[in-house]
Amino acid sequence: MNQATGAPGTARPGGRTARVREAVLRAAGDALADKGIGGIDLAEVARRADVGKTTVYRRWGTVHGLVADMLAEMAESSQPRADTGTLDGDLAALADLILDTLTDARQGPLFKALIAAAASDPEAAAALHRFYRVRIDEWSPCVTTAAARGDVPAATDPAEVIRALSAPLYYRFLVSGDPLDPDTAKRAAAATAAAARSGAYVV
Amino acid sequence: MNQATGAPGTARPGGRTARVREAVLRAAGDALADKGIGGIDLAEVARRADVGKTTVYRRWGTVHGLVADMLAEMAESSQPRADTGTLDGDLAALADLILDTLTDARQGPLFKALIAAAASDPEAAAALHRFYRVRIDEWSPCVTTAAARGDVPAATDPAEVIRALSAPLYYRFLVSGDPLDPDTAKRAAAATAAAARSGAYVV
Repeated sequence: MNQATGAPGTARPGGRTARVREAVLRAAGDALADKGIGGIDLAEVARRADVGKTTVYRRWGTVHGLVADMLAEMAESSQPRADTGTLDGDLAALADLILDTLTDARQGPLFKALIAAAASDPEAAAALHRFYRVRIDEWSPCVTTAAARGDVPAATDPAEVIRALSAPLYYRFLVSGDPLDPDTAKRAAAATAAAARSGAYVV
Repeated sequence: MNQATGAPGTARPGGRTARVREAVLRAAGDALADKGIGGIDLAEVARRADVGKTTVYRRWGTVHGLVADMLAEMAESSQPRADTGTLDGDLAALADLILDTLTDARQGPLFKALIAAAASDPEAAAALHRFYRVRIDEWSPCVTTAAARGDVPAATDPAEVIRALSAPLYYRFLVSGDPLDPDTAKRAAAATAAAARSGAYVV
């Protein structure tokens, strides 16, 4: 029954358990994007997913348990980093990816709901932090290779550069409400590259 | 009855209406910091404030109405900017102020709850954005005076510099969960100053 270890049985990848998880997480994502964290419950998610309520309660327990599993699934299936050959190109690609995600009609409200859930629940917060840890680790080699090329100081902290690139987009999205547009993404990439070259992220 | 215009009457500043507002907003802030946006209701706030339930329902209507008024009050009473004589000094002062706020035992959870409330309610979101607009406008002269001194390019967008300084602190606080410490604040100030000097915030 353990999908993670690849043990044989009914829960093999692509099997019924995996299909149920996919349907439930898809329905939960739709509901979260529609109504936010305060507007959904497990019974509604089960109905939307066409899965038995008992299955959903037994496997996920609470809305926050569902949020945590959704973030785990997003981390597992997250896209690989860009490799354009320059730090500026890689940072611009990441800024565009974040911009596209936060301004997407489904993903934007979904991320807002996931982050709001993390504000009030430690389990959701831990899952959110793990998701961003995976994303930051995925993109950090853009900085490591830039340092190897001599583009930025050798002691530059790769994770800190990736966080610095992401931050202005999330700040507008969650905090100040200022518009998110391609100029915002370009400016985030250019500012982060300039600060990195100046040694601001050396640890 | 209009406190904002200073018209005489029972609602003069320091009068009963002002005292009720202060008590209710203080109680609402305590409850939000304790329990988050999902954990409070108007009846509980009225009880904590020792104010009649009817008064609270009539004046604020909903928890989100209360959140909006709390943010309006925070904007009205917000502290003036630093004026250290250098851009680096002013940005370091702002970074320290944000760090102190977000890591404060009461203010940290309160800001998290206010931002989470804004994720699911347009009225709370509008109030949140107005609050940050006031704060950004208050600190923007640090950049205008730096440009006048020739420290940064003349066409630098002051608001964008203030947002860039704030963003890495809020990103850790709300999104990635990485630690917020004095080094984070120092790095935000140094990186923003370097990027501003390089012309990254020229519009």
